[in-house]
Amino acid sequence: MRIDILSVVPELLESPLNHSILKRAQNKGLAEIYIHNIRDYTLDKHKRVDDYAFGFSAGMVMQIEPIDRLITHLKSEREYDDVIYTSPDGETFNQKIANTMSMANNLIILCGHYKGIDHRIREHLITREISVGDYVLTGGELAACIMTDAIVRLIPGAMSDEQSALSDSFQDNLLAPPVYTRPAEYKGWKVPEILLSGNEKKINEWEHEQAVARTKKLRPDLLK
Amino acid sequence: MRIDILSVVPELLESPLNHSILKRAQNKGLAEIYIHNIRDYTLDKHKRVDDYAFGFSAGMVMQIEPIDRLITHLKSEREYDDVIYTSPDGETFNQKIANTMSMANNLIILCGHYKGIDHRIREHLITREISVGDYVLTGGELAACIMTDAIVRLIPGAMSDEQSALSDSFQDNLLAPPVYTRPAEYKGWKVPEILLSGNEKKINEWEHEQAVARTKKLRPDLLK
Repeated sequence: MRIDILSVVPELLESPLNHSILKRAQNKGLAEIYIHNIRDYTLDKHKRVDDYAFGFSAGMVMQIEPIDRLITHLKSEREYDDVIYTSPDGETFNQKIANTMSMANNLIILCGHYKGIDHRIREHLITREISVGDYVLTGGELAACIMTDAIVRLIPGAMSDEQSALSDSFQDNLLAPPVYTRPAEYKGWKVPEILLSGNEKKINEWEHEQAVARTKKLRPDLLK
Repeated sequence: MRIDILSVVPELLESPLNHSILKRAQNKGLAEIYIHNIRDYTLDKHKRVDDYAFGFSAGMVMQIEPIDRLITHLKSEREYDDVIYTSPDGETFNQKIANTMSMANNLIILCGHYKGIDHRIREHLITREISVGDYVLTGGELAACIMTDAIVRLIPGAMSDEQSALSDSFQDNLLAPPVYTRPAEYKGWKVPEILLSGNEKKINEWEHEQAVARTKKLRPDLLK
């Protein structure tokens, strides 16, 4: 799959997109991630991509033209499943959306910055608006990284052990059970006896019980 | 305020924490952000910080000792308001939590990686578990960046225009109204007439109406 990320601070995206699973997925040819500098598409001689908002509110707004030119250029080269805008008022991103998007061929993610983008971009160029949570960020760059990470790790082969994704929180609407590793005792803090028993059936049962109990206690909404 | 971020892939954190508002806040002395490599605190000669999970599930688990040694070291030097663990089953991060945390003096954020961390760390060393959303990420690093960004931008003086934060989405339980900038017409797509009127009172009313209408349509839960 291919993801094109559009940003006015592309340098911010560098390290998150080039380490760990995202790096491995790109090296394996499972994902192509391209970062585009919106500034390269402005016709303004000072490379400006923002301007004052109409009205009286503070903050700068990203201009329509450079973004339109960049998106038009990308769309002339291939078909995109979605042109996504990361915004706190978008549809809330979750594991189900990540699963669906991991099957897309080509995605554009436009990162907002400053006070936001000219609303006409949202009306005419964007096909889907996504929020990664109910909080405000400096820009959409971290939201784009979050989405890219959550999506790309689900592509078969991206993770070294596919089993890992299937037992993740949310994949079965349950939180993950607690995990432990050696030593079995540290400063008097002990691993639950059952995990040391070697009885696979009982351990699996215990893990499922723990997952259900943790979900009931911490996130009962997931069980509805 | 000071934020200490604990990670096994510290290089992933570099670019997001050193650009835009986070860079400015650090340059202005408003925030100190330290990235710690958990690997520096292992006693293992191969610098290993993870091990197989007890039981039969796949995936590696982060060991208790290096994390305990690092947190103990930090706590010996100053008092921390919270030792936070980023986890999909934690309390869901939102703007209210960001507001509160922006008034903290010292925070530790521990980034999980692999299959998770030894559960005894969560029982004995962590004071607060936070999730940035209902999706699974490769590690807690991006969640830590999200939290740091959302928190630090709220510190007075971090943003170039403080007014900007007050009119953000969520600050008054309303989504932000649409914003527009020049040109007033682009490819036949027009800015709403009212915004060009120069009538401040009417524009403010229109913006409030739009904010309420957008919230009712997109996020009625915020109005409850």
